[in-house]
Formats: sequence, C-alpha cells, structure tokens
Amino acid sequence: MSEDSYQEFEKEVKMIQNIGQVKSLLHWDQQVMMPEEGIKARSKQNSALAKIYHQKITANKLGELIEETGLAELNEAEQANVREVEREHTRAKKVPEEIEEKISEKQSTTVSKWEKARKEQDFSVVASELEELVELKREYAEAINPDEEPYKVLFSDYEPYIKYETMERILERLGTELTNLVGRIKDSEDIQEKVFQGDFPEDKQMELSRNIVEEMDYDWDRGRLDVSEHPFTLGNQFDCRITTRFDEENLAEGLGATVHEAGHALYELGLRKDLYGLPSGSSRDLSVHESQSRMWENHVLKSRDFLNYLLQELEEKFPEQFSDVSAEDCYRSINRVDPENLIRIKADEVTYHLHIIIRFELEKDLINGDLEVEDLPEKWNEKYEEYLGIRPENDSEGVMQDIHWYQGSFGYFTTYSLGSVLAAQIYRSADQEIHDLGQKISSGELKPLRNWLKQEIHEKGCIYRTEKLVEKATGEKPTADYFLEYIKSKYGELYDLQ
Amino acid sequence: MSEDSYQEFEKEVKMIQNIGQVKSLLHWDQQVMMPEEGIKARSKQNSALAKIYHQKITANKLGELIEETGLAELNEAEQANVREVEREHTRAKKVPEEIEEKISEKQSTTVSKWEKARKEQDFSVVASELEELVELKREYAEAINPDEEPYKVLFSDYEPYIKYETMERILERLGTELTNLVGRIKDSEDIQEKVFQGDFPEDKQMELSRNIVEEMDYDWDRGRLDVSEHPFTLGNQFDCRITTRFDEENLAEGLGATVHEAGHALYELGLRKDLYGLPSGSSRDLSVHESQSRMWENHVLKSRDFLNYLLQELEEKFPEQFSDVSAEDCYRSINRVDPENLIRIKADEVTYHLHIIIRFELEKDLINGDLEVEDLPEKWNEKYEEYLGIRPENDSEGVMQDIHWYQGSFGYFTTYSLGSVLAAQIYRSADQEIHDLGQKISSGELKPLRNWLKQEIHEKGCIYRTEKLVEKATGEKPTADYFLEYIKSKYGELYDLQ
Repeated sequence: MSEDSYQEFEKEVKMIQNIGQVKSLLHWDQQVMMPEEGIKARSKQNSALAKIYHQKITANKLGELIEETGLAELNEAEQANVREVEREHTRAKKVPEEIEEKISEKQSTTVSKWEKARKEQDFSVVASELEELVELKREYAEAINPDEEPYKVLFSDYEPYIKYETMERILERLGTELTNLVGRIKDSEDIQEKVFQGDFPEDKQMELSRNIVEEMDYDWDRGRLDVSEHPFTLGNQFDCRITTRFDEENLAEGLGATVHEAGHALYELGLRKDLYGLPSGSSRDLSVHESQSRMWENHVLKSRDFLNYLLQELEEKFPEQFSDVSAEDCYRSINRVDPENLIRIKADEVTYHLHIIIRFELEKDLINGDLEVEDLPEKWNEKYEEYLGIRPENDSEGVMQDIHWYQGSFGYFTTYSLGSVLAAQIYRSADQEIHDLGQKISSGELKPLRNWLKQEIHEKGCIYRTEKLVEKATGEKPTADYFLEYIKSKYGELYDLQ
Repeated sequence: MSEDSYQEFEKEVKMIQNIGQVKSLLHWDQQVMMPEEGIKARSKQNSALAKIYHQKITANKLGELIEETGLAELNEAEQANVREVEREHTRAKKVPEEIEEKISEKQSTTVSKWEKARKEQDFSVVASELEELVELKREYAEAINPDEEPYKVLFSDYEPYIKYETMERILERLGTELTNLVGRIKDSEDIQEKVFQGDFPEDKQMELSRNIVEEMDYDWDRGRLDVSEHPFTLGNQFDCRITTRFDEENLAEGLGATVHEAGHALYELGLRKDLYGLPSGSSRDLSVHESQSRMWENHVLKSRDFLNYLLQELEEKFPEQFSDVSAEDCYRSINRVDPENLIRIKADEVTYHLHIIIRFELEKDLINGDLEVEDLPEKWNEKYEEYLGIRPENDSEGVMQDIHWYQGSFGYFTTYSLGSVLAAQIYRSADQEIHDLGQKISSGELKPLRNWLKQEIHEKGCIYRTEKLVEKATGEKPTADYFLEYIKSKYGELYDLQ
C-alpha cells in the first residue's frame, strides 16, 4: 500500500520536474533562437507553464502522497526525493498565489525600468519600482517564515542546505583577508603581460572553445554550444546546452565563459540517468553548481598546468599573437588583479569577492528594512570606496550594473562566493586523490578530474544535503580555509608578496 | 454572469492553446536543435505535456463553461471559439485515455519497426505492428462514432469542416481526369531542359532561399529559417519558423521546399495578433494550410511570371549554370512531368494526385476492414501499375515510402490533394481581384498577393468553417473545377496536347 504511494509520488514528481525542464528549454530558446517578436507569445506560454507548475507543486494530493510515503521503507535516494519535494511543496504552499503573481509582474516592469534607467544613467527612473519589489519580497519572506529575518528566508531559497551563519562567517573571513591581500597587491608591481589582448576573430574563438570543451569530455550527443548575450547553461543529464560570448579584442573573456559554462554542464551531464526527473537525479543548489563552473574556470583554465598545454593550441589558432609567448606569460596575463575595476563580472579571482560582499551587506540591509532604496546608490558608492578605494562615475557602472535585484533576486549573490570557496575545497581533495593531477592537466588529460567529480559530486544529485555532500567529498564541512590558502599562495607568488 | 463564464472559458482555452504551442516548440527544437541523446528526456517531457493537454481539454469544468457560454451574447469570433473548442472537447472526451495511450505507444514502436523494415526492404518486419495500430485506430474511431464508417471518422480528425463526400467527389474527378492527362503526356515528347540540375553549394542555396522568403514578405522578427531532414513549419502569429532542405545537385528541390514552407508560415503570421491563443486566431485545418503552401510553390514559384523575375537572382548566385538560360527554360524544367517516378514527395503537380488517390483507396479499405495488412504491399503495387503503369522494385520504394501510416496517420493524405484544389480555386480569385497580378509577380512584387491572402484567408482564423471560408473568399464552395482547368491549360500547353 505505502509502496504504491511512493510510486505514485514519484510519478507526480516526474511530471512536475518535466514541466520545469520544459520551462528551461523555453528559456534557452528565448535567449538563443527565438525571433524578437516571439516574446509576445512566449511570455504567455511561460505564464501558462508557471501556473501549471505552481498548481502541481502546491497540490493537496502531492501533500497527501508525501505524508503516505512516510510509511514506506525507502532507500537513501528515495528519502531524499521526499525530503526535497516536501521542502518545495511546503514553501510553495505558504506563499499566496496573489503575491507570486504580483512579484512576477513587478519583476518584469522593474527590469524594463532598469534597462531604461541604466541607459539614461538615472537611478531615479527605477527607484520606486525597486522599492515596491523589495516590499513584495519582504511580504514573500514573511509568508514563508514570519519569525525569521526576511533576508535569511530569501537566502535559503537559493541555498537551502548551507546554514546562513556558515555563509556569513565565510564572507566575513573573505572580507578581512582579501581586503588585506588587495591592499598588498596594490602596493606591488602591476603585471605587464597582456597576451590575451589583440585581434581574435569570433569563428576562430568558437573553434577553440569547441576543442576545449571536448577536452573537458563534454559530449556533443548530449549538448550544444551557442552564442548568447549572457553566457548560461541549461538542461539535464540527457541534454545540457551551454552558451558563451566572445570579445574579439580579448580572448580570455570567451575562454573563461566557455570553460565556466562547460563546468556547469558537466555537472548536469554527470547526474544519474536512471534518476532523471527526480531530486536524486538533479543537481544541488547554486553554490555547489557554481563550485563546478569556477573550479574549471579558475583552478584548471587559469592554472600553469593547463595553460602550458593550451599554448600549443593557441599558437595553432592564433600564430601571430602566440608564437613568441610563453606559458608563464599566459599565466601572468590571465591572472592579473585589477583593483581599479568597477564591474563585478569583469573582476579577477581576488577582488571578485569584495564586489560580492558589498552587495551582500547592501541587500541584507535593504531587505531587513535597515536601508532605504533611495539611499542605495550613495551607500553603494561608499562601500566601493571602503573596500576597493574606487568610486563609480555614475550609477550605471555602480548600483545598476547587475540585473539581479531588479529581477527580484535578493540573497543570490553570496552563492557566487560560496561557489569559489567550495571549488577550492573540492579541488584540493581531487588533487590529493588523483595521482599526478597537475601532470595530467598539463598534458591535456582532463578526464580523470571529470570522472572524480562525477563520482564524488555529480552522481550524488540531491541525495545528500549540501554540507554533507561537501563533507563526504572532502572530509570537511564547507570552510574558507582552502580557498584562502589557494588565493594567498597563488597571488602571493604572482605579486611576489612576503 | 454569462459574460463572466465566457471570459473564464477564454482563459481556459488560452491555457490549453499555450500548452499546444509549447508542444510545437518542443517538436521544432527536437527536429532542428536538440542533441541526439536529448530524446531520452524529451520523450518524457512530451508525454507530460500531452497528458496535461488531454486533462485540460477533457476537463468537466471546460464542458460546463462551454455550456454556460450558450447564455452569453457572443460575436462571430467568440461563437467560433466556442464551436471549435466544443468539438475538440467532445471528441477528446469520447476516447478512453487507455486507447490514447496505447495508440501513442504503438505509434512509437511501429515507426521504429518501419525504419528497420525500410532499411531491410522487408515489409514483414513491420506488418504485425501495423496491423495492431490499424486495429487501435479502428477502436479509436468507434469510440468517437460507432455508427459511422471508421475511415470517415479519421478523415474528420484532419478535416472537420470539409464533407467527406466533397472530398470523395473531388478525388474521383482528379483520378479520372489526371489519369487521362498523364496518358497523353506519356505519349508526348518529354521535356529536355534540366537547368536546375548541376552543382549548387548549400550556402548559396541558403542565401537564395533567404532572399526569396523576404520577397514573400516573411518577417525575420517573427521567424527563422533552418535546415532539417524533413522541411516543416511550426509556430503562431508572433513566431513562426520554417525549415528547408537542400539537394546540392538539384536546385529546384530546396527552392520548392522553402517556398512551400514559407507559404505555410505566411498563413500563421497573417493570423490576428489580438486573438492569439484562441481558435479565431488560429489557422484552419490541413487542407486550407496546404492550399497556402501549394499556392506559393506551384502557382507562384513555378509560374513563368515569377521565374522570369527569379532568373536575375539565379544568374547572380549561380552564373555558371544560369547565364545562358532563359526564363522559358526554367519554366519547362521545373514543370516537367515524370510518370516514371515512384516517390510521392518527388512527384510533379500532375502525377502527384495519383499517388494520393492510391493511398486514399488503400487506407480507406484498410481502416474499414476491407483489406488486410498482409495484402497491402501487393495491392500497392497493383495500384501503381493501374494508375501510373509502373511497379516498385521493392516495398521500401513502395508501401513503405511514407511515414504516415506507420505513425497512425490514416485519413491524412487526401488533404494534400484538397490543398492543391483549394490553392487553384483561391489563386484564381486573387488573380481576378488583384490588378495585374502576373505583371506584379514578374517584377518580384509579391506583397499584393500576400496581403490579399491575409485579408481573405489568414485573418479569418477559424471564425468560419472551411467550406464557408472558401466560399467567402472565392464565391464558391470547394470545387475541383479551377484546379483541373489550371492543370489542363498549363500542361496542355507545355506538352503541346490537342
């Protein structure tokens, strides 16, 4: 009897997850393939699917099935399926549909205003919309848990299984240590090598990108690589597509984007095929996902070992730029720290987290009611002054540079830093466990790393909660130790710091 | 009160049609973009959407809303929305979900077997599957209307508003008159010109295709043109995409495919935007759709007027092949009749309908129980002997050449011939009402025709039943008169018949 309920429960869950997958595909199509005017029909299709998804995830029938599964004997993966779905079901049920709809509408209008405001470099154009959106997000958080700080509730939407306090502690440490490190780098001699700047035709870059993702063991039978305005990855274990973007004057940008997105894709493609459509066959949340992309981007691509290998290919594709260049030149160029940079997505591995900390402090105060929207631009600029010693010339390169807040994503940014922290921690374990990993990477042999990640992270899906997943793979709960060790060692050497 | 029910009814209908649109997009993606292994997840997504669609179209709530709208004062378009949805709702409710599921499964397995059987040139590989599928389709027809010949019921799935008897009468006339015409053509001198054969690189053909669809007023902001194995068109008034296919040795194939599909697309793109998601803002059924594609392909592309214009472009793109060629050479080449051809999709405008008639006669007997599956291959060959005087060498170029039956589409083929018939009838009216249409076409001015079609056909959506739609546009109910007049005049002249 209860075995049957579990089967019925799985059937419902798969139905819901399939709708989610279709939503993803529509998004991919919209970003990559859809003709411009298509949005007028697409937005209606999106709403229809969102509505069906919401109906199904909040259905009383699903709640009953969840309850009944309590009586069944379930294995680890099945228990995880129940746990994850129950969490989403419970949260979704708490939020009145009216609030969901209001937020959805307000997101669209705020993003439109943001686009206008950004073009006109005038924050006041979007201020009142943003204020209303913040207010709605507070109501949303209150509906889920009226006894908790609203910002904490929002954070747990993106990162349900990393404790808020863990995140806070990690960010605090990054703040202190990286501010110090950036100060010392500023006082050192700047890196002069700039071998990734020049003239790199897009078609050649695409060939290079295709070669690299193949070396990463990305599988064309289960994916594609296209170009879009903002690189992203979407899919599942059978079909996970990546997009990238090329800057014809800067080869490093496209390379970084491609490898980063391929890192995300390998995660999805490494999920268990037999568990498609279930949480146990789905990737963990944002931080773990970001750990995969950042590991490939920072620990592999930007390493001496890999650049040593890549140089042959760079010479072949771009003989003019790379025939007189050493792997060490590549390494120094691609890892240059730029404390003058105001833009998060262009930031290096070190200053990046200061950009995140600034956003974290601001969004926390904003959502918890300790900061008014009208004061946001000035506060932003002050924080940049404080952490990086620079000041935006206008709000378009300041508080309006990222889309996140204007689309209602508060509590999201910190997962980027958590991703870097987890990347370092996981990579260290891989390095310890894979024989001669550096040697392998320097001869272009990337599969051993990919296979190790598959076994330790990807195949686990959502079977474990995040902290346990990390602990099982690395022997420790999430910690900033290895990230800071890695960063200090790498940049200490690069900048010849004592 | 009843006004409100109508509003609620529309909301439900739009939800259902949006799911239908999403299903279409998934199909487009599957044919054009999806990596190979993606099918394993995609088939599950398709089933999920099909299930939701079925639940919603058969929902009792929808039935109640339909009933309540009877009390409201509705305009013509609203009445049509109710009529069309009621028809689909009633039919869908009659078919037990079990039969639907069995058919859906049997379709997949039969198509797989068909692929194998076709490769091995061995009909017996697929025979028993096909038999079961035929039996299931009979059950399906019986569920819908046990008092009607099953084949008639299936026909009305594809063509609800053309009377079966009208179709039958039209096909009979085509059979008699075209058999006669083909006989006379066989006795005449063959056309020698073959200017569309040669060496035509795919990229050049794509440029040409893009130019031509632009001249047809196809709108890139609402569409795209890609390549797929079988050309097709999918979408709506905001986003209607076409695919084509090129043969590097035969320019006419790709040209025909592109113009044909663009004709389908112009229909969708000509629907009223304010009625998106409703039958009144959706295209009519297969015959009318096919009338649009065939009109552009046969009456425009293959006309002296258009070829006269096109020749400049052909010369530019393929100077080697077209610098010494006249428009008359093009006209003769592209319109050559080949009675020796065994393959429907390669057939000319004249013999084409004999291929259809053969299929019609066979599938009617098959579904109505007057012909056994095991006798099908021999009957097929006999009919080819009878109508065209040729005999397939094996069943792969005989009874297994088309996918239709093996995917359970019985009653579909005749809509192709109806499409040609309606194309001629509608084109004749356009020609009478648009001043100097031929002159305009010969200078590449295609918009007047497009606009006339938009006004007379496209914008009407499903507001009128098919026969009335045709009557409003042409002054007459569907008739084969104009098609036969057109064919006899065109080919009589080409083959110098008395």
